[in-house]
Amino acid sequence: MQPVGMIAMSPKVAPGVLPEDLLDRLARSLRLPQTDPVERFDDQTLASLAPVEVLLTSWSCPRIDARVLDAAPRLRAVVHAAGSVKAHVDPEVFTRGVLVSSAADANADPVADFTVAVITLAGKRGFRHAKAYAAGKVPSFDERRGNDGRVIGVIGASRIGRRVITRLIAAGYRVLISDPYLDVVDAAGLGAELTELDELCQACDVVTVHAPQLPSTRHLLDERRLALLPDGAILINTARGSLVDTDALARECANGRIDACLDVTDPEPLPPGHPLFQLDNVWITPHMAGVQGREVRRLGEYAVAEVERLLAGEPLLGRVYADQLALLA
Amino acid sequence: MQPVGMIAMSPKVAPGVLPEDLLDRLARSLRLPQTDPVERFDDQTLASLAPVEVLLTSWSCPRIDARVLDAAPRLRAVVHAAGSVKAHVDPEVFTRGVLVSSAADANADPVADFTVAVITLAGKRGFRHAKAYAAGKVPSFDERRGNDGRVIGVIGASRIGRRVITRLIAAGYRVLISDPYLDVVDAAGLGAELTELDELCQACDVVTVHAPQLPSTRHLLDERRLALLPDGAILINTARGSLVDTDALARECANGRIDACLDVTDPEPLPPGHPLFQLDNVWITPHMAGVQGREVRRLGEYAVAEVERLLAGEPLLGRVYADQLALLA
Repeated sequence: MQPVGMIAMSPKVAPGVLPEDLLDRLARSLRLPQTDPVERFDDQTLASLAPVEVLLTSWSCPRIDARVLDAAPRLRAVVHAAGSVKAHVDPEVFTRGVLVSSAADANADPVADFTVAVITLAGKRGFRHAKAYAAGKVPSFDERRGNDGRVIGVIGASRIGRRVITRLIAAGYRVLISDPYLDVVDAAGLGAELTELDELCQACDVVTVHAPQLPSTRHLLDERRLALLPDGAILINTARGSLVDTDALARECANGRIDACLDVTDPEPLPPGHPLFQLDNVWITPHMAGVQGREVRRLGEYAVAEVERLLAGEPLLGRVYADQLALLA
Repeated sequence: MQPVGMIAMSPKVAPGVLPEDLLDRLARSLRLPQTDPVERFDDQTLASLAPVEVLLTSWSCPRIDARVLDAAPRLRAVVHAAGSVKAHVDPEVFTRGVLVSSAADANADPVADFTVAVITLAGKRGFRHAKAYAAGKVPSFDERRGNDGRVIGVIGASRIGRRVITRLIAAGYRVLISDPYLDVVDAAGLGAELTELDELCQACDVVTVHAPQLPSTRHLLDERRLALLPDGAILINTARGSLVDTDALARECANGRIDACLDVTDPEPLPPGHPLFQLDNVWITPHMAGVQGREVRRLGEYAVAEVERLLAGEPLLGRVYADQLALLA
């Protein structure tokens, strides 16, 4: 007898996350009385939670709190087919001994690929020159363009930060890493040099941010640290907007001292007409480094494999622990 | 007794191509009566060519024709610290048995890196969404964004085309290759599938052009072939503008059917206000995929190493043969 499962996510994302073939595969592990995704825990849904042992969640999953847990006494695991579980996993889930898994790993490769591609093009001054060219300006070539000999600073040895480092080392860059939870040996294992944050800002041509969004990391790159970056440096943020002081960054970019490539901003979305949009040396994308379109399937694949591991008694690869909740991106 | 050398290139590029340390290294192989670069073969320069055995050339080298060769009876090699030798190497150079070397290999890695970065970001619709975002538009997300499962068509197994294939295969893409001079075994050795050009255009989400600029490759991607590309496809050109029919491409891009990323155009530079500049789904850079700024040194390093090989009696790695002159980019 298969354990009962329930799918809880936005019906809009469900076809991408769990296309037909993945749903079929999931149905070999779980009995799914209802394959349509649940978007709200209303009375009817709460009633049908009684036999549910596994909740497979994704974007727009309603919050799983004491009320929901009371209705799901057999719940063993919340398997999230997306990144952060902060929004929908109440601490009570952990308290009751329910396992939690996140597919953040599945999101990390596309973000790392995007980040390294941005580093490559920004290092050539590609974004700056494309904007200038389109505006009919002759690009002002400088000797600080080109990627040879660049020293890249990675802030945060997160799952994405580590993947970025691996790719940069393979491409031949020298990489400095700053992370309060990393030691010299771990850094060396990644091929990077552990460096204090201020020193990293001073020493790097390119700085890319991969720290989690926490009260303590708000404006990690504030006016003072941005001022430490050398002239001509490039700041890349594909993590969270709040890690950078947007106003201070806008000033540094407006005076042309540094370039920026931002997939995330604070506020987000950036209001139309924001000064950062006007600058040749700033390239801004609308929070899209993570899985998009056909890549969304990765989340479902990861989650279905987690369910299979759970039922086979194997450890969950994406397991999230209660004490991590506060440190997650 | 060291052979005599002469440096012939624009004085503007010389400090980048042959910085102090490379000049010192070159001086261990060649006697350089004059380290200032020659930009014209005037009477005085012609006179000083008499003892010269090696000409080390780069961008803006004046043409080496019969008149110059008559003045340089001891000339053994023209070692070019840049890509194409077409502009300055007269066929007569080959006729007289002078060896010719090009540093095109040294230029190929940066172009391949640039191209693959563009493929990564274009596949996410990064360029399109950045432009839309800056214009205050809500990006119209479609399911054709994201890089998973993409089939990439590479046109031309040139030194750059091959490097692009290697990188794409390593990144997990399926790659089709079209090249009239390649056989199935060579294609398979690269990890790609040899495909007839029309079929490649029909089968690929992304098509990247790496063919040489020849009369026979002019408008290789003409209106008919561009129409073969599937809806939502992406065309990338970091090779030569004339390979693509610009007007036909502009029409396909204007109706939104395909995206384009162009580092080269025809005409080049593209006139200010050209319709291609106005489109969200077109990203144009001013011919900068090749070595830039700090990367220029690669050309000098390659050329100096060629001189060292020449004098050690080793084969030149960048040797150019007379019959290749017509097939070179």
